[in-house]
Amino acid sequence: MRALTYFGPGKKDIVEKPMPKVENSTDAVVKITKTTICGTDLHILSGDVPAVTEGRILGHEGVGIIEEVGEGVKNFKKGDRVIISCITSCGKCENCKKGLYAHCEDGGWILGHLIDGTQAEYVRIPHADNSLYHIPDGSDEEALVMLSDILPTGFEIGVLNGNVQPGQTVAIIGAGPVGMAALLTAQFYSPAEIIMVDLNDSRLDTALKFGATKAINSGDGRAIEKIKEYTNGKGVDVAIEAVGIPATFDICQEIVKPGGYIANVGVHGKPVEFHIEKLWISNITLTTGLVNTSTTPMLLKTVTSKKLQPEQLITHRFTFDQFLEAYDVFKQAAENEAMKVIISNE
Amino acid sequence: MRALTYFGPGKKDIVEKPMPKVENSTDAVVKITKTTICGTDLHILSGDVPAVTEGRILGHEGVGIIEEVGEGVKNFKKGDRVIISCITSCGKCENCKKGLYAHCEDGGWILGHLIDGTQAEYVRIPHADNSLYHIPDGSDEEALVMLSDILPTGFEIGVLNGNVQPGQTVAIIGAGPVGMAALLTAQFYSPAEIIMVDLNDSRLDTALKFGATKAINSGDGRAIEKIKEYTNGKGVDVAIEAVGIPATFDICQEIVKPGGYIANVGVHGKPVEFHIEKLWISNITLTTGLVNTSTTPMLLKTVTSKKLQPEQLITHRFTFDQFLEAYDVFKQAAENEAMKVIISNE
Amino acid sequence: MRALTYFGPGKKDIVEKPMPKVENSTDAVVKITKTTICGTDLHILSGDVPAVTEGRILGHEGVGIIEEVGEGVKNFKKGDRVIISCITSCGKCENCKKGLYAHCEDGGWILGHLIDGTQAEYVRIPHADNSLYHIPDGSDEEALVMLSDILPTGFEIGVLNGNVQPGQTVAIIGAGPVGMAALLTAQFYSPAEIIMVDLNDSRLDTALKFGATKAINSGDGRAIEKIKEYTNGKGVDVAIEAVGIPATFDICQEIVKPGGYIANVGVHGKPVEFHIEKLWISNITLTTGLVNTSTTPMLLKTVTSKKLQPEQLITHRFTFDQFLEAYDVFKQAAENEAMKVIISNE
Amino acid sequence: MRALTYFGPGKKDIVEKPMPKVENSTDAVVKITKTTICGTDLHILSGDVPAVTEGRILGHEGVGIIEEVGEGVKNFKKGDRVIISCITSCGKCENCKKGLYAHCEDGGWILGHLIDGTQAEYVRIPHADNSLYHIPDGSDEEALVMLSDILPTGFEIGVLNGNVQPGQTVAIIGAGPVGMAALLTAQFYSPAEIIMVDLNDSRLDTALKFGATKAINSGDGRAIEKIKEYTNGKGVDVAIEAVGIPATFDICQEIVKPGGYIANVGVHGKPVEFHIEKLWISNITLTTGLVNTSTTPMLLKTVTSKKLQPEQLITHRFTFDQFLEAYDVFKQAAENEAMKVIISNE
Repeated sequence: MRALTYFGPGKKDIVEKPMPKVENSTDAVVKITKTTICGTDLHILSGDVPAVTEGRILGHEGVGIIEEVGEGVKNFKKGDRVIISCITSCGKCENCKKGLYAHCEDGGWILGHLIDGTQAEYVRIPHADNSLYHIPDGSDEEALVMLSDILPTGFEIGVLNGNVQPGQTVAIIGAGPVGMAALLTAQFYSPAEIIMVDLNDSRLDTALKFGATKAINSGDGRAIEKIKEYTNGKGVDVAIEAVGIPATFDICQEIVKPGGYIANVGVHGKPVEFHIEKLWISNITLTTGLVNTSTTPMLLKTVTSKKLQPEQLITHRFTFDQFLEAYDVFKQAAENEAMKVIISNE
Repeated sequence: MRALTYFGPGKKDIVEKPMPKVENSTDAVVKITKTTICGTDLHILSGDVPAVTEGRILGHEGVGIIEEVGEGVKNFKKGDRVIISCITSCGKCENCKKGLYAHCEDGGWILGHLIDGTQAEYVRIPHADNSLYHIPDGSDEEALVMLSDILPTGFEIGVLNGNVQPGQTVAIIGAGPVGMAALLTAQFYSPAEIIMVDLNDSRLDTALKFGATKAINSGDGRAIEKIKEYTNGKGVDVAIEAVGIPATFDICQEIVKPGGYIANVGVHGKPVEFHIEKLWISNITLTTGLVNTSTTPMLLKTVTSKKLQPEQLITHRFTFDQFLEAYDVFKQAAENEAMKVIISNE
Repeated sequence: MRALTYFGPGKKDIVEKPMPKVENSTDAVVKITKTTICGTDLHILSGDVPAVTEGRILGHEGVGIIEEVGEGVKNFKKGDRVIISCITSCGKCENCKKGLYAHCEDGGWILGHLIDGTQAEYVRIPHADNSLYHIPDGSDEEALVMLSDILPTGFEIGVLNGNVQPGQTVAIIGAGPVGMAALLTAQFYSPAEIIMVDLNDSRLDTALKFGATKAINSGDGRAIEKIKEYTNGKGVDVAIEAVGIPATFDICQEIVKPGGYIANVGVHGKPVEFHIEKLWISNITLTTGLVNTSTTPMLLKTVTSKKLQPEQLITHRFTFDQFLEAYDVFKQAAENEAMKVIISNE
Repeated sequence: MRALTYFGPGKKDIVEKPMPKVENSTDAVVKITKTTICGTDLHILSGDVPAVTEGRILGHEGVGIIEEVGEGVKNFKKGDRVIISCITSCGKCENCKKGLYAHCEDGGWILGHLIDGTQAEYVRIPHADNSLYHIPDGSDEEALVMLSDILPTGFEIGVLNGNVQPGQTVAIIGAGPVGMAALLTAQFYSPAEIIMVDLNDSRLDTALKFGATKAINSGDGRAIEKIKEYTNGKGVDVAIEAVGIPATFDICQEIVKPGGYIANVGVHGKPVEFHIEKLWISNITLTTGLVNTSTTPMLLKTVTSKKLQPEQLITHRFTFDQFLEAYDVFKQAAENEAMKVIISNE
């Protein structure tokens, strides 16, 4: 089969790989019909994730069709259409029993990282019963690729950790895919105001279409000041960090009001200076986290009932043959007005 | 001043009463501009609430203008436009400090019950700082009458007690004003399905317009069966009782799924048979309660930001001179296609 | 092997049965070293649980040694010492993923009910990885039999559902094994007062030794009055029902204060009259449930650290040969001053 | 009257001051019978709190007897014995209604800071109804001085924010008064292990007497390593920072396990480096805060029922005449084996 494969920092290609097969009785092999590219894949290609070794097939998102299951798999059978979760969960370790699937002792984020991933024609999924989800009949499958990672990440790590409540004022720093996922799912809780902050006007326009009530371009370095002004000096109830650099973390710690929440979703490469000399007194809550995907069934119901329209996040579509081109577009996402790209294999 | 006054079971009239005045330093006197009638007022007139004595001015809902404040009142001054909460809260007793304002040791539901109420040209409001709310400039004041009681009741006692979550299936039994308030505010949390049950098709049509996804007329005695069918035999995550009779409570206990919630909002006059011989094993939570109105500030923000449109509940408008006529219409609410009626005094 | 077997209402005996074996890859077979008898077993013998068919081996509690595991079992191997949970959990159905193991779609309470149980020399445990727990080295194994059912039941369904908090006043109605389990585990949260109510003075004396601060014999029909008096007329924050009859449920609904909790733990055979005509206004929460045993790992840590001493619940010890005698003693538990009995098979 | 008065950095004295009197109708004047000194008072004397102006009477803790009340005070009368909360709460602003008394718009921490404090013979307490608590008859009043600040601070900001649960492993960094308060109140929730870390062996010995299960002297720079070792490499569920410097914050961020909590209680003067490049993936929750004292009534009940023995924190006693000496002892608390000092005025 063909697979998008990593060959060390800066190097990737579509190459022929052997078909994956069931190795453990709880494995499934899935034929990928749609996949996508994540910002994390770009980090890997930059060499930022040393655990990824040369020859690794990338990708941790996708939908597909069950090709084969081990005899221990009960929830799925050949021919079932499935969403692949970016998180593999054994369902039986201490962390899984607490719902902390991100830290599964025999799983977590392993796809396209420690084992071969979804940017291929087929993929092996360990612990299939707890790591795949049935696609309801009549669904827009392409849209459901957004449920592999981006939507549960924005929802669990941004919205739920941030404790968004009706009537509140929320700021989301970063209007990339994960910020947009937080924007869409924050609206499950009917906040009064959602302020979106980014450097790119086109993305900000999109955010306004997606339900943001205020867009602020932080390019002039005055985002903090503008948010304070917009909130009558009070600051926000919830600040969601969806970039992953010190400057955006700083905005969050400056705008959160006493009693408020900072929910960090961004993947950071450097420490940040936390202004505890000011914030010790402020009764704030700061959270971090890798998605557990424990809300995937809930999110599926919101998609089926049209409370959530994940297809809004998709801007570009490619065939499997165009995979390298898809990477090129996504790498310059902002200037290409790209959000999420779909790669089809049908 | 003129006031709608109770003269014993079945007897009421508009009569002249002395103007209320500040009696304690924390009192305010409010000129009523808009008021309404609650189902509870009809109960009082039926003689069901013996604590209400003859000569009592009825009513616990309304908006108005501050006429006078005691020297201990800090949040309000003459001329301020305010929403009157149906619950009087001292803010300093054990229950108030727990947010359990409904059971304030020097308040709770007293307006139009133990002290004179709002169906008058003026009303005295004890503990004004904790029992009134500022009306934001530019608001539709009539709509805000719905925030005195009906919306916080549906929200706190129905939706919050019922723990409504995104993607869930909710059933609301009773499409009267409080059921409709629960329907509107349940949508703050984006449930996938809201099933509305009532005997009146017109009310059910309204419910569908207000966001219900399924309407069931229970007149044929098959509501339980139909809900089970609609939910593929699973039942509902949350059942909200908004009538107050054994038959509707029964529906709730039959349709709730294991792990689900029954939130009782209805005012009951008789005990119910609780099928604990079946439900002991079902891990359900059953809640009751009088509204605390602790969410009024939150609700105000959702109104200001248009997440909630309380004016949808208003069907009829009367002048103060037509107060008795308003009662006639509201008494036969279903057949008059009445939901909430507004009585203006301007 | 020998097994305590049900032969229809009122009939049981120790008979020879074939050894259980691994039927599915996720099964384990456990050699039972210690087991016990539950009130539910008596209900079965009374014919109250028609799902139990003739020839069924009873029992859903016990500790033992792994004899054999299916190839899909990862957490356990032959020779491991284990606690058997009364609840079988597949770990992969919708309810298990919500932590609602009691309602596992391929498990729940099945041992000694729908499949053969633990009152035997060996037992087959389906879904072993999610239904067994390792016994830490150096543990008092006999004491850990209490973690199969009684302690998680008292804790989860009584204490956690009742939301017991530091400084509160708690009443537990029923000083049998499950009431005592609630009493022991309620103290995890440091309530100020725990009032124990029962008809048996010896059990009440034991309750005082176990940490109750007040014992009330309800034999004179004045329990409600006495509890009201003891609480200065205020009632209790939490009432835990641990009997399962209308009279004890009634006590709970009379003594709970506004804003309080009624946690039903008792197994009821009849409906109860719920005084919603009085309680609709009281902001109470009433819960029911079958134990999930999701807290078993937490409870194990409290045992290891001596915060909980389950051996306090054990009053009688028998050999496997004396099993019928053990039943005789437990059937007349109160008069035999019996709480939990241990049957050893070593 | 006499009062301990601040005269600029490093300067304080006992001087004559005019008696305070009721200025607003909600004020009370309290005759101080016992007071104490807080670490914050030392910060003020170091000049670290510039909002404190010369001539200010210090102190925000104490018990006493009501001397006079304004006409708006309802809960207290002359002669009542009271605990003074370190936080003044109006009970009627937006933050007070959310229970966020620390950020009361007309209060918060003002005593001995923005208005005259409790290290005097008399003190004026604004918003007395919401800022004082009745002392139950027969109480050890001296012990209750610990409820003004130290115990609610350790409990709310350390234990509750840290979400301590039965069976968990908790580390408390800093065995000074606030760390000890966290240690005592953490035990309300029955954690399995409480690891105490400090530089002073005498304080560590005291911690072991107060219920810590492990004491670690961090003087050798190996605290992180030792905690990891003690927890089998897993780290702790909850890390409570009770010092307020970067080094102790660092210990917390190194030892918290995935899914765990860092509860910052320490008052910091400098920013800290937060290792978000490692912790973004760890699903941790970090909290900060000034005490709300909303749990004071709960804590009082735990004292009355002997679940909490605040007198354990008191090491030294002085008369009002010895106030400067008390400061000298407290300033070198560790070497004087001092925890909390009591200054009596009776």
